[in-house]
Parts: sequence; C-alpha cells; structure tokens
Amino acid sequence: MTRLAEHIDGVSLIDHHVHGCRLAPVDRRRFEDSLNEANTEPLADFDSAFDTQLGFAVRAHCAPLLGLPRHADADSYWRARRERSEADLAQLFLSSARVSDWLVDTGFSAGVADLAELTDLSVGRVHEIVRLESVAERAVHAGGDYATAFAEILHERAATAVATKSILAYRGGFAGDLSEPPAAEVAKAAQRWRDSGQARLTDRVLLRFGLYQGLRLGKPIQFHVGFGDRDCDLHTTNPLYLLDFLRHSEDVPIMLLHCYPYEREAGYLAQAFNNVYLDGGLAINYLGARSPAFIGRLVEMAPFRKILYSSDGFGPAELHYLGARLWRNGIRDVFQGFVDTGEWSESDAVRVVDLMARGNAERVYALG
Amino acid sequence: MTRLAEHIDGVSLIDHHVHGCRLAPVDRRRFEDSLNEANTEPLADFDSAFDTQLGFAVRAHCAPLLGLPRHADADSYWRARRERSEADLAQLFLSSARVSDWLVDTGFSAGVADLAELTDLSVGRVHEIVRLESVAERAVHAGGDYATAFAEILHERAATAVATKSILAYRGGFAGDLSEPPAAEVAKAAQRWRDSGQARLTDRVLLRFGLYQGLRLGKPIQFHVGFGDRDCDLHTTNPLYLLDFLRHSEDVPIMLLHCYPYEREAGYLAQAFNNVYLDGGLAINYLGARSPAFIGRLVEMAPFRKILYSSDGFGPAELHYLGARLWRNGIRDVFQGFVDTGEWSESDAVRVVDLMARGNAERVYALG
Amino acid sequence: MTRLAEHIDGVSLIDHHVHGCRLAPVDRRRFEDSLNEANTEPLADFDSAFDTQLGFAVRAHCAPLLGLPRHADADSYWRARRERSEADLAQLFLSSARVSDWLVDTGFSAGVADLAELTDLSVGRVHEIVRLESVAERAVHAGGDYATAFAEILHERAATAVATKSILAYRGGFAGDLSEPPAAEVAKAAQRWRDSGQARLTDRVLLRFGLYQGLRLGKPIQFHVGFGDRDCDLHTTNPLYLLDFLRHSEDVPIMLLHCYPYEREAGYLAQAFNNVYLDGGLAINYLGARSPAFIGRLVEMAPFRKILYSSDGFGPAELHYLGARLWRNGIRDVFQGFVDTGEWSESDAVRVVDLMARGNAERVYALG
Repeated sequence: MTRLAEHIDGVSLIDHHVHGCRLAPVDRRRFEDSLNEANTEPLADFDSAFDTQLGFAVRAHCAPLLGLPRHADADSYWRARRERSEADLAQLFLSSARVSDWLVDTGFSAGVADLAELTDLSVGRVHEIVRLESVAERAVHAGGDYATAFAEILHERAATAVATKSILAYRGGFAGDLSEPPAAEVAKAAQRWRDSGQARLTDRVLLRFGLYQGLRLGKPIQFHVGFGDRDCDLHTTNPLYLLDFLRHSEDVPIMLLHCYPYEREAGYLAQAFNNVYLDGGLAINYLGARSPAFIGRLVEMAPFRKILYSSDGFGPAELHYLGARLWRNGIRDVFQGFVDTGEWSESDAVRVVDLMARGNAERVYALG
Repeated sequence: MTRLAEHIDGVSLIDHHVHGCRLAPVDRRRFEDSLNEANTEPLADFDSAFDTQLGFAVRAHCAPLLGLPRHADADSYWRARRERSEADLAQLFLSSARVSDWLVDTGFSAGVADLAELTDLSVGRVHEIVRLESVAERAVHAGGDYATAFAEILHERAATAVATKSILAYRGGFAGDLSEPPAAEVAKAAQRWRDSGQARLTDRVLLRFGLYQGLRLGKPIQFHVGFGDRDCDLHTTNPLYLLDFLRHSEDVPIMLLHCYPYEREAGYLAQAFNNVYLDGGLAINYLGARSPAFIGRLVEMAPFRKILYSSDGFGPAELHYLGARLWRNGIRDVFQGFVDTGEWSESDAVRVVDLMARGNAERVYALG
Repeated sequence: MTRLAEHIDGVSLIDHHVHGCRLAPVDRRRFEDSLNEANTEPLADFDSAFDTQLGFAVRAHCAPLLGLPRHADADSYWRARRERSEADLAQLFLSSARVSDWLVDTGFSAGVADLAELTDLSVGRVHEIVRLESVAERAVHAGGDYATAFAEILHERAATAVATKSILAYRGGFAGDLSEPPAAEVAKAAQRWRDSGQARLTDRVLLRFGLYQGLRLGKPIQFHVGFGDRDCDLHTTNPLYLLDFLRHSEDVPIMLLHCYPYEREAGYLAQAFNNVYLDGGLAINYLGARSPAFIGRLVEMAPFRKILYSSDGFGPAELHYLGARLWRNGIRDVFQGFVDTGEWSESDAVRVVDLMARGNAERVYALG
C-alpha cells in the first residue's frame, strides 16, 4: 500500500450533499427499487437492481460490513440485511463512511431520517441545506406579498443552514431564459399559482425569482445537474445552459452536483468561473466498478480547488457508505495512475486529496 | 487464459441486429468504401479505409482467417480476399462469428444476401426484422385508406418477424413532437405524400403514426440511434429526445442500437425505463482497438439485463465476424478488469456475459 | 524504450495552429491567469493556476528545462522562470518542442510575438493563418462595396498565408443557418455594421459571407471548435451544427481545432466528409495527466490521414513546448497500448505517428 493509498483511506470526508437514510424497514422490492435512481416505476419482474453496477458494488463493498464474504449473492445479502434494524444499519454504514460533516438537503425527506435523527446517530456533524423550491412552496401559502414572504421564509430557514439548493433541473430544466424577473411579473405568477391550487412549483418566473433570492442570500447554491430520475428531461440539464445565469452570479458559490453525463462540461464551467464548483455525487454510486473512469473525467478541466465530495445518499444507508468507499477507491486508482507515470508527485496527490475530501468544502461552506 | 476469458471465447452469440452480407464481388474501391459508414461519397484519392481503426482491426483479426499473418498489409489482404468467392468469404466469416441466431433488418438490402440466402449459408438461425418505414412505403401505394393498408401490411409482414425497426434517425431525427397523430391528420398526410410522387417517407406525421402502429403490434421496436451515415443529423439522434415517446411506450421493448456517441445517455434510458434496452452495434467495429473503452461506457448506467450484442454487419462479411470478435475481446478486457480489481466476482462476470451474449435477446425476442 | 517510443520522441512536428509566445515579462498573477483558458476574469485570491492539470504538467515537464527537479513547487518554478528573459524562455521552450513548422494564427496577437519575431527566434519555419473575421473588420473600414473590399483584402493577405481561420464559435456559435447570404443582404448588413460604429464583427450575415469567401479561396479553413474562453457559449460550438455547412464545402479542407468535449463528434465528421480534419489542440495542454484519455478518443472514428497536431500555444512559451511534450507522451501511451495488446503492429503505429505528426499537415497545407 502506497503512502497515497493509505492517506486516501484515512482521510475524513465532508459529504457536502446528502439526504437522510431510511430508519424504517421496507420489503425487498422497495429496497431494490431504491437502488434504481432513474426509474420512477417499480422494477419489472424480470429485472433486479442487484444486477447493475450499483448492485454489484453493494455486494462487493457492503457485504463485508454485514459479516458476509465479498460478492455474497443477492439473496444472502438481503437475508443478512433483514436481520438488522434499519437504525443499526444506519449506524454501521454511516459511521463506516468516516464522514466528519454531513450537509443534508431536507427538501425531499419522505421516509428518511430528519436532521435530529441523523444527529442522534452520532456519525458526524449535521448541517442543513435549504431547497429554494421548498421555500417557494411555503411562501405561496403564506398570504400577503409572495416576494416578501419568500424572502422572510428564506432568511429564517437559512439562518441555520450552510447553503441553498435548486432542483430547477426537475422543474423545466436549464434551457431558456434564466434572468431575474421584474417584481410585477413575480406577483402575477404567484397569483396564478395560488389560483391553480397546485402544490408543486413549476412556474418558470417564480423558479427564476427563487434563484436570484438565493444569490442575494450569498450562501452557496447547489444545483442538481444531470443524472437523476426520469421526471427531468436529462438533455435540458446540461450545465452549459446555465452560462448566462453564471455570468450574473458574481461571487456566490455555485455547486454543480452529480453532473453525469455532463461532467466534462461542468469541469469547463469550474475553470471558466471563479465561483463554480462540481462533484460527482450520485453518479459514483451508480457507476460502481466504472466509477474510476468517471472520476478521471471529473479531474480534467476543473481547478483542483473547485472539486468536492458528496454521496447524495438517500434511503438505504448503504448509499451513504458506498459513496465514500467508491470515491476513495476511484480517487486512489486515478491519482495513483498519475503518480506512477510520473505526471504528478505523490505529495501533490496527497495535497489534492485533502482539498477534494474536505478542504474545499471547509472553505466554501465556512465549516471551520 | 482465465475461466472468464475462456467462457467469453466459447459462448454462442445472438446478433440481434444485422443485415445481409454481400454475395457478389466488388472492386477494391467499392470494398474500401464499404469500410466507411459515415461518408456517403467515395473515399478521396489520398485516403484509404485500411488506415482507420476498422481497417487495422480487419488486418489484425480477419487476416488470420484468410491464412495471412496478423497485421498483413492492405495489399496482401486485398489479394488474399480476391482469391475467394464472396460466398466462400461469407461462409468463412459468418461461421467463425459463432452466432446461433441472426436477426436481420431487411429494410435496406441492395446488393446483399436476403433471408433465404443467409439461411442457405447454414451459419445459424435467421429471423426477420421489419422496417416500419418500408411498411409505410408499401402502404402508400396500396390504394384505399392509408392507415388500414399500413396495419394490414404490418401484420402480414410481422407475422413471421421477431421485431420492427425505425430509422426515424434518418428521417428528421428524434427532436420534436413524437406523439400519436390524429387519424384525420394521418389521412391528409398520406394524401400529400401520394400526390408528391416521392418514394421515400419523410413526412413527420406518418413517421409518428408508424411508431404507434409498431407499439400496438407489441413486438420489440429497434431504433437506429447515433452513429450512421451523414444523411442523418447526428445531433438530432440523441436518444434523450425520445424521452416523451418512451413515457408513452408502456411495456413494448424499445431497443436502442449503436448509440455512439450517446451510449451513456442510452444507458441512462435503460435504467429509467423498464422497457428500454441498448447495444453498441455498429460502433464496435468502427472503433477497433478503441472499442473496449466504448464497451466500458455501455456497461455503466444500464442494468445488465438490458444490454445486448449486435454487429450491424452489412456488405463485407468481415463485419459480421469482426463485430463478434471485437465484442468478445472488449467484454473480456472490461470484465476481466472488474474481476482483477475485485469489483466483480468471476462467476458474476460469467453470468453477465451470458445475459448480454444471448440471454437478454432470448428473453426479449422470445427466441426460446 | 520501444522502437515506437523512440520514434515518437524523435519525430519533428508540424504545429498547424499556434499563436505567438510572449516576449515581454509579466507578473506572477498575469502569468497564472495565462494558464487558465476559460476564465475571462483574473483568478480568485483563493485559487492558483498551478493547482490544475495544466499547472501540474508545467511543473512536471517544464521545470526540468529550467534546471529544476520534476514537480518543483510553484514558488520555485516562478523564481526560476523570473531569472530568465522572456526571449530566452521562448528560445528554450520553442526549440525544445522540436517543431519544424509553426502555422501561426495572427488574428489575436496582443502582447505576443509577431511573425517576424517568431522567425527571428530561429526555431522553425513560420507560416501565416489569416482570420476571416479580421479581414471583415478591415473591409468594413475600407469604404466602397464591402464584398469587393473583403475579397481584395482576403486575396492580398492570403497570398502568403497557408490557411484561413474562423472564430464563428466566439461570434454566435455554429447553431443556425450557415448558408451563403445573397449579395443584397451582405451589402445591407455591412451598412448596418458601419453605421453602428462597432469594431467587432458579430453580424451573422457577414460571418456567413466570410465563410463562403474562405471556401472560394480554396485554402484550408480552420474552425475554433469547443473549449475556449467563456465568451463563447460552449454548447453552440458542437461541430455537428456545422453539418449543413460541411455539406456545401466540397473539397476545401476544413480543420476542426481543439474539439473538447466534442472530439468524438469531430472524429465522426472526419469520417463522414473527405475534406474534414481534426486535432486536439489546446485541450491537450489543459488536460495534462488526463490528456492520454482524450487523445485516445481523438483516434476513434477519424481516419488516420485526417488527424493533425497543434499546440494552440499563446502567451507563455511553456505552452508551445508542453503541447508537443504531452502530445508525444499521450500518443505513445495510446499507441503503445494498441501494440501491446496486439491490435496494431508496431510498424503501423510508427507510420500513423508520422501521418499525425507531420505527414497530414504537409499534404493539406502543401508545405512540401
């Protein structure tokens, strides 16, 4: 084991974008469905989420934590998992991730641990990320002027939060006008939304309004980019469509999450704008044995002070652990390759690991 | 040689999308032109199709079957090839592919073997795939109501076929509305087409109509996706433009063929929809020594029960063999890599090979 | 060291797209800013261009030429660099690149050596490439008929030039109509431009006009494609948007430069059109340790007689050297891999190196 490999294995991570893990048991079908991100329907009868890169990675890396041999078969894995409570599994997997700080997106939290429950697991410090669209969905019910209500709720909720997040990717995508709408348009759009009785924010004017409120707040804004479920039109989440918005974002940190299959475009933006950052998020878990190839592409055009770690774990606690395990393995393979061919020195590699594992997140989110 | 490598070498394949091989001799210039897929004009005088990845792969893998050394030069290869009849070459290369079932797209068949001739070669079972656009081009001449004629011809032709295929990629691409057109619009469009006297179907309404007739038939529908000749606007064949169509395709298997350079997008769709499948088709031959890198990207987001093998061979019989050879080599390199790093077990790798080589095709096309 | 590796190290290159190197000293901040291509603003205080793939590559490959150990730290590198004059650095780095011919784009030359100064360095023959947009920006001030003035200036300037170049990528991108505009439209657009008093050509009609003048001239036309600074909307520089233009370009060589992240699309075009060529240009320097992966993708669909070398060096003389060093290393890694797995013969690999290093450029630019 090289000094670099040892260092990567030992470094404590900041998971700068994650959700709660599940604390209540589910049946096998629900469990397997949680190992498919893109599909919004139950898996077909002929299929199994264990027969995917993620499924193989769970069996390779999570099985040993349950006392099973590496590559234990799917049935054995499911039996061993079922013998433990979800709380035990959460404790086991989250502590094994060796994450010092979890930055938790609370915008979608059905069936998973909330901030207090995560804190109670004693697996690292817990911080909140506030979804701009959730703020909007409260503001529309607040009565009075929408813009004022939005600003008040945002400031109240953000007081204890480290960042905001936008899921514009799921509400029409990035293509099209992303300029700040005039106040009168905002008021009219809010009225239309109220009148419609819909719970979910899909109005483009109000989505744009939210982004600029987020910019004014000044805390980092995270954007879901690329790979996610099929409710988003993947081709409209190419981060290059954010170019005009980024040109107006000044120095508020903009965090591009996941980015698959647009990680090279995201890396370009991280070079082009002092305030743009990226991670591989969710994609790393889903790529399993293929994640080193993806991690290689993440470290192309983006300056090394602009790349972060996240798991985007949601639901099965395996994801919170596996994200860290695969990230460590992938970074090790990629960086060791650079060192072995003499392109990088080992001490530089160690230094860049520290930046990506936690240094950049500490700086951007002021986690001190 | 590992057990995995041996298994990959020995497994019999189902080539789920292929065309006839040529049975009449051509001169060297025509032969070289057949080794360039994208160009619709003869190669320039300064160029040679032997100086490409495909050309190098032909010399590396096909030359030994002609009794030549690996990497025999282009002139020697051409001389050795010319000494045999096309029928002998077809027999040699197709039998060497070790393919048990050929699923043959008969929609474009100028100058190549038809189903009976392929069957006569005794190189595996032969099945038909019916092009929806060919059905349309017969229906327009049938007289009477176009929609009725289309349905009748489709059912008649599909009675003995295993699947249908659409070349929408070559007739305007995927971008834009792909909803089912109302009957009145279909009738009007058919009349316009009849009046125009054109042979080729390019009317978007009728192209859309054909897709929904294909869905109603219930057999798998193959889509040409990505890499092909320059008659298609490659950027309009990004399979993500099929999203809305896929949302309405229910459980009819949709097979995304070739996919280069959109193989990661296609893999995403295979995860997102229970009925979406993909292969690397044509691209593998054209990538030659680079095909393992491409095959790696094919096995990223797509569940392993959703990935198939095809050669898309057309014309020179070398392509029917080389597709199989390069697929075997690429799968071996990629999977052996996963096994060697401990990400996959060898027995899992063997199992996934069987799924991709034939199991998935047997299930989807009910080849029993 | 294999025969192939020795050959790659020794072959003299033609750098078919490059700019002048800087001859006047700059401070460290300006120097670091010159190592970031995409950003148009000064780097943020927390950042350093040394902490990027390019920065690491400079320290790995350029430091030894300054008498420093490989991977010398950034401060040591800067000190060693500052001890020499820019002219000495230019001499050192450009001669170390072992380039026989520099094809120099003089369209943007603020603060860098002009053709005469480059010639005076005695580091290889110097040829000119004329920017079509620069011709336009002179023609608009010429008085009289714009089209006539354009043609006269182009012929005068191109008399001693080997090629023209278009930066349409930076002036609205490739998406949209690229047909030849009628003369009356050209005259009107020229009048509008004159009346506006603007120096910079952004009018689409006149940009299109310039391209067809370039075609008529018959010399190769270079296009900036993909990666560049953020003034271009990267997604509008996908070379597939050039398809219609290419269909009308007949046999005038069209050179697609840089191409990141669209190198696979560019390779497809090089297969699809007898007159289309590509290189990895600028991207290779910026990818540093990741450049072999990129170079692998450059040699996929493109015929080997259609791929060239360029550095696109501008400013720090390191870039003129590093482009050559990284290209040699990347080609060596990629081709040696093909040879080691038996996909290519070593003598074929040597032959393809010669084509890409200089043979293709000699043929296309008639450098004899």
